[in-house]
Amino acid sequence: MKCVRLWARDPAMPMHDPTGGSILVVAGTHGNERHAPWLLQQWQTQPQALQRHGLEVQLVLGNAEAHRQNRRYIDRDLNRCFDPGLLEDPNAQALEVQRARELLKLYGPQGEQPALVVVDLHSTTAAMGNSLVVYGRRPADLALAAGLQQCLGLPVYLHEADQAQHGFLVECWPCGLVIEVGPVPQGVLQAAICRQTQLALEAVFAVLAAAASGQLCLPPELVVHRHLGSIDLPRHPDGTPAALLHPGLQGCDWQPLQPRDPVMVDGAGQVIALEAVLPPALAGRQRYWPLFINEAAYGEKGIAFSLTARECWALPAGAAAGLEQLAAQLRRC
Amino acid sequence: MKCVRLWARDPAMPMHDPTGGSILVVAGTHGNERHAPWLLQQWQTQPQALQRHGLEVQLVLGNAEAHRQNRRYIDRDLNRCFDPGLLEDPNAQALEVQRARELLKLYGPQGEQPALVVVDLHSTTAAMGNSLVVYGRRPADLALAAGLQQCLGLPVYLHEADQAQHGFLVECWPCGLVIEVGPVPQGVLQAAICRQTQLALEAVFAVLAAAASGQLCLPPELVVHRHLGSIDLPRHPDGTPAALLHPGLQGCDWQPLQPRDPVMVDGAGQVIALEAVLPPALAGRQRYWPLFINEAAYGEKGIAFSLTARECWALPAGAAAGLEQLAAQLRRC
Repeated sequence: MKCVRLWARDPAMPMHDPTGGSILVVAGTHGNERHAPWLLQQWQTQPQALQRHGLEVQLVLGNAEAHRQNRRYIDRDLNRCFDPGLLEDPNAQALEVQRARELLKLYGPQGEQPALVVVDLHSTTAAMGNSLVVYGRRPADLALAAGLQQCLGLPVYLHEADQAQHGFLVECWPCGLVIEVGPVPQGVLQAAICRQTQLALEAVFAVLAAAASGQLCLPPELVVHRHLGSIDLPRHPDGTPAALLHPGLQGCDWQPLQPRDPVMVDGAGQVIALEAVLPPALAGRQRYWPLFINEAAYGEKGIAFSLTARECWALPAGAAAGLEQLAAQLRRC
Repeated sequence: MKCVRLWARDPAMPMHDPTGGSILVVAGTHGNERHAPWLLQQWQTQPQALQRHGLEVQLVLGNAEAHRQNRRYIDRDLNRCFDPGLLEDPNAQALEVQRARELLKLYGPQGEQPALVVVDLHSTTAAMGNSLVVYGRRPADLALAAGLQQCLGLPVYLHEADQAQHGFLVECWPCGLVIEVGPVPQGVLQAAICRQTQLALEAVFAVLAAAASGQLCLPPELVVHRHLGSIDLPRHPDGTPAALLHPGLQGCDWQPLQPRDPVMVDGAGQVIALEAVLPPALAGRQRYWPLFINEAAYGEKGIAFSLTARECWALPAGAAAGLEQLAAQLRRC
């Protein structure tokens, strides 16, 4: 992909604002995703083990109690607690809501040790590979994702407009994304997953350092997999699944799927095609790209897989400049 | 492998004892292993979906409360509770100890609805494939395993003489084994894992039906992977791991390993060879076969992987005849 500069940098813009903020890296937002907390421990005891590209980085364990118990969460999913209405609700006292408030008080953009960019490290039982999740269409997020896609070829899941899933951590900072790596079982540490996580995180720092020094060079386009909706398994009245994912779909995240392709098989061995489970709002396309296929934690959310549209977007005007302006305020170390 | 009959059948032996017992199939002994309970639900609602080969089969959910909570166990691992000392200890009131007593009261060989053979269905995050676990060297177990190995080529893990791991469910019935299928994350249902589990279970019924009707024909030898011991990761004083499994070992269950092969990598990236972590009692062999590599539930047991010796055993004299005698007492349906 040709590398072009799409914007003019304002020479009056400060290269480094000492009153700015750091990059926040959150590990263990879900307590049974073990890789990022393991890496965090290594980086804290051996700071040179993480290439920070000269930027100030704060490392924090997201949900320490859930991590201690090796559970995704204690009261509720921390990565759905960053919803303004929930955070401001005095009756919301779940452990994770309190932790969300605390993280914002400490590291939020107006926090005690403010961060301007957040990277939330996750793993999944789905075969997502090394990938990025971006929430909505904030220009700085898209610019950062484009830089990472250029560096490492990472695929991007653009999550938006889903009424059932909101309140994601990264949305509370001016810029941020999720690094999502899989497949790996919950509660298991695998060296390859750690390696991929670290590669993606160091690429974030490299892109931000380039942006901070006015050296950011982005591709003109970004390939996104735009969220359309999610599909659940058919269920019995008691909530238990009445079908399994079709074995041919397992592990096929990011691969195109047509309406007549098999996606499930019921208890009697009958195959169910995608078109039979597509809600009307999602029907009518020739191809879909399924993601988060059979993620262990999504059963309770009623998600067997999500469907996306693969699209090639021109970067929004000013996205790169916006990321440069933000990155210029990042503290150096 | 040549199929031979190694024994003479006593013509006076009854072919079918109506006062005998059934085959007990236990699903969900661990509550976050989801496949067998899903299958059990299918078999209960569609009895024809399970080929029983004319034998009476009782299907039971091992740990219903742990299954409901999608946790391996509530108080302690049910598959370590079948220890006579523990079962008889009036102070042992953990939920799983009570359940073990209940299972024996209901379905034990002297229970209300007695079973003579038990099959305990498990899944694992390790790449064990479709495999069998046999506990100790009971001749009937070895004969059954030999029959299954002949039918489906299943590898056999022979677990014995481990002071740290005992009290397994199948040991409380005259004959029994574990069907262990993986890799699959905890809390996830995969159709292929279900299919493998069912294939192995139906092969158990086929072998037992052949034995019950005097048609058992076993190979002269059984290949076993005999348990030698288990290896843990090095740990920090607080118990957290100080190394990861080497990425080259992940997924390599059943594949031979030599003392100088890498098995771990520490936080500084230093590779650790097998010989560096072998306790003296296990040293001195040219090759080992690692099993249960990176099983999620074994971290808390201090097991990163187990080591076995691959051996080809002649079936013990009388093993097949013993299985025939036992199978002749199985109830028909």
